Amino acid sequence: MPADSVIVAGEKTTDILFESISERSKHEDFLRRAVDFLVERVVFGRSNRSSKVVEWAAPEEIKKIIDLKPREGPVSHEQLLTFMADVARYSVNTAHPYFVNQLFSSVDPYGLIGQWLTDALNPSVYTFEVAPVFTIMEEEVLREMRKIVGWTGGDGDGIFCPGGSISNGYAISCARFHHFPEIKTKGVYAVPNLILFTSELAHYSTKKMASFMGIGTDNCITVKADKYGRMDVRDLESKVLDAINEGSAPFMVTATSGTTVFGAFDPLLPISTVCKKYNLWLHVDAAWGGGALMSRKHKHLLKGIELADSVTWNPHKLLAAPQQCSTFLTRHKHLLAEGHSSNAQYLFQKDKFYDTSYDTGDKHIQCGRRADVLKFWFMWKAKGSEGFEKHIDKVFENASYFLEHIRHREGFKLVLEKPECTNVMFWYIPRCLRGCENEPGYMERLHKVAPKIKEKMIKEGCMMVTYQPQGSLTNFFRIVFQNSALEHKDMIYFANEFERLGADIIV
Amino acid sequence: MPADSVIVAGEKTTDILFESISERSKHEDFLRRAVDFLVERVVFGRSNRSSKVVEWAAPEEIKKIIDLKPREGPVSHEQLLTFMADVARYSVNTAHPYFVNQLFSSVDPYGLIGQWLTDALNPSVYTFEVAPVFTIMEEEVLREMRKIVGWTGGDGDGIFCPGGSISNGYAISCARFHHFPEIKTKGVYAVPNLILFTSELAHYSTKKMASFMGIGTDNCITVKADKYGRMDVRDLESKVLDAINEGSAPFMVTATSGTTVFGAFDPLLPISTVCKKYNLWLHVDAAWGGGALMSRKHKHLLKGIELADSVTWNPHKLLAAPQQCSTFLTRHKHLLAEGHSSNAQYLFQKDKFYDTSYDTGDKHIQCGRRADVLKFWFMWKAKGSEGFEKHIDKVFENASYFLEHIRHREGFKLVLEKPECTNVMFWYIPRCLRGCENEPGYMERLHKVAPKIKEKMIKEGCMMVTYQPQGSLTNFFRIVFQNSALEHKDMIYFANEFERLGADIIV
Repeated sequence: MPADSVIVAGEKTTDILFESISERSKHEDFLRRAVDFLVERVVFGRSNRSSKVVEWAAPEEIKKIIDLKPREGPVSHEQLLTFMADVARYSVNTAHPYFVNQLFSSVDPYGLIGQWLTDALNPSVYTFEVAPVFTIMEEEVLREMRKIVGWTGGDGDGIFCPGGSISNGYAISCARFHHFPEIKTKGVYAVPNLILFTSELAHYSTKKMASFMGIGTDNCITVKADKYGRMDVRDLESKVLDAINEGSAPFMVTATSGTTVFGAFDPLLPISTVCKKYNLWLHVDAAWGGGALMSRKHKHLLKGIELADSVTWNPHKLLAAPQQCSTFLTRHKHLLAEGHSSNAQYLFQKDKFYDTSYDTGDKHIQCGRRADVLKFWFMWKAKGSEGFEKHIDKVFENASYFLEHIRHREGFKLVLEKPECTNVMFWYIPRCLRGCENEPGYMERLHKVAPKIKEKMIKEGCMMVTYQPQGSLTNFFRIVFQNSALEHKDMIYFANEFERLGADIIV
Repeated sequence: MPADSVIVAGEKTTDILFESISERSKHEDFLRRAVDFLVERVVFGRSNRSSKVVEWAAPEEIKKIIDLKPREGPVSHEQLLTFMADVARYSVNTAHPYFVNQLFSSVDPYGLIGQWLTDALNPSVYTFEVAPVFTIMEEEVLREMRKIVGWTGGDGDGIFCPGGSISNGYAISCARFHHFPEIKTKGVYAVPNLILFTSELAHYSTKKMASFMGIGTDNCITVKADKYGRMDVRDLESKVLDAINEGSAPFMVTATSGTTVFGAFDPLLPISTVCKKYNLWLHVDAAWGGGALMSRKHKHLLKGIELADSVTWNPHKLLAAPQQCSTFLTRHKHLLAEGHSSNAQYLFQKDKFYDTSYDTGDKHIQCGRRADVLKFWFMWKAKGSEGFEKHIDKVFENASYFLEHIRHREGFKLVLEKPECTNVMFWYIPRCLRGCENEPGYMERLHKVAPKIKEKMIKEGCMMVTYQPQGSLTNFFRIVFQNSALEHKDMIYFANEFERLGADIIV
């Protein structure tokens, strides 16, 4: 027994975190004060509408305000608490209702507690021995997600990844291994020019991962999108044929369910038909749109996803789980393991006393891996699937309310009349440009509006909405609804703010 | 002003986390109870020596005890608290002093608070706009680490990665791009057989990443290690020459500072000479041993690391930062950005109003990325560099004490007489095998000892020490010291426990 043996060693038990009783009480005192600060000032203090979204400071100012350089000696507990306050103050308040700048936002209280518990347990998920609960929890949650995708019985495999880009990389890896297993040992040299396809409006990670994975960006062919942002399936087929005729080896298509800017959903059924015809792996990047699968009302957007070979789905996006919570799912049961295992003997010993099929760590490219599952599982338990459905329905309803509100409001011009997801894209037209649509230089002037409004918005800290150009479209705003605590009044607030900040801008 | 505009919208401010006042107080009540549980029961309750390291339950038992399946409806707050207790109970207590099973352990109180603050702020680090403090904090911490590596002025670049495997992947990517930039667009097809080298005792991630990155495991050549576990430099040079003679394109060597099992340090100076001679990128995987750079007494182990082109260094290992905290460092200032950037316009707009050189997210292969820096920065502030030095000196001293204690103790046989890091490797010889060294079947019988002891150890929960075979060496234990709260009495405890569990084992 541990306690006895400690007595054998001749000293009384002390706590591991702290070297002595007085050290312990000093640390305990700090820990309690720090936790109080976190709960009162950060969690409860920052999530209300009257606080600022961001306390803007330029890089050089932040360096002056916070002594960020590591130093030789320690600082006091008082100073540490001050650091905490300063770090929080100058960090963007992503929990704020008016942070609608990215495809993530808000801090869900259940998700946060799940994350804090994970941290306190400090696990790394690779063997059942070291992470028993997390290993099985991942299995259960991933199976349920596969069922929701539509794969019979939730069969297949999956993994929690550090972000959607890596998930999309796993898709390339599995697709490649599925078609050409010799690549694992011989490299892509074993095959004539691998080619994959994705929409020109797909997330940049597919091209980036194609490069990282030795395939090269030139071999990631971009397919035209239609005016709604959806993949043009005829262009896809024609490009597949081109590649075949050139003697290359097309092996996969990455379709998108919820593109980053437009929130468009590629037509999965016809894409799947092309994939079947030419024996291509179909991956669906539903990092953003995957959450819609939880809603009976909106899941039609991903119709055909059950025909995919693999799916990326990030609960940290539309389902509002904390950063990061990203999954790669595949209907192929053994591919992850066969494609990635290296059988390291120091970690995956086969002579352990339990069923080592639960040592799942060899199927991923990371060694140590965070337990990103618990926060999501905890939210799921707290809300139930029906809670996620309500959440999804609410954010779609908000998006639709905002869209209708600005559709006819003076100064607003929609980029897409009928966006499919909760992204709403629009130009704000200041008074000086109204009625000037046909004048020379109009587009150049309009292009300058969004950066100017953005600067004012951030310096005031009243909201955060991103803008970007896309193709031939000049800078426009994209507002993203992903936080179900927002109400209709907030939609009016956003529109009013654009008017207040932008109406009198001169460009 | 936000407050005014909310009034314009016609309703009173409410909190974002909670839909109404009564909802809020319900959630607040839960959050406070959950935080109390975390602090009292998990943080303070689990880190003392009299608690168990693990409450063993087989996979099927855990599934029975905890209802892990996601369900349609929500559960009560009471049930959520019970879930928290059960998840904690059946998770391995990695904070426990007797968890010495992996290259990580303990939960540092400052690291934990840093991590909890990060979670409460829920950031994603890619643009200055969205993560101003974290962006600059990363820059400062990485520069300081590069200084410690020995690069003048801390010049170069770096990134926090999700684990050492990905860091080692970045090294391959940078080395490859440095030698053959056309690979980014054209893939590895552009070059005749890329070849990289690493020790046969190096971490498996280099081979695994070589495969993932399209190079293939066959093209990751393993170099012989000497009996201390260090890379044999003559074998390296001869294999480099072989590759050149075969018309392949050798481009890098990954040396290891602190191998996973033996804790061996490859001889960096002669390896660097070979790299210079054949124009090879030198990467040093110091994921495990990097922390020794913080100690004047032990940094000699990494002599020559300043000659490397890049380094992997995981503060979550020897420096005991929470999971995960892993860095990739390089002396080459622009390579990460040039090798990985894709210039996505929706995120890295160049017409922002601030200096967009601070939007560093395009240099990594992830899009969204966790802020793993804060916990480490916070520990560094709390302890100072001098605190890390004391920590390192203490864990090395403990390892040396344990080594001397078991060197002559009956039943213990060292695998390495003089291990270099804080890993101590030994066989425990039960009574039934003592004096039988020359009998046939001895090695087969010895091979079965470690799994048997391990099973007893885990089922009792008295400690966790891993075992593995290596090459021709039959199963041996590897105990790892990385927690500076351990004392000499704990070293005696471990030895006593091996005797108690193992002396009478029959094999």
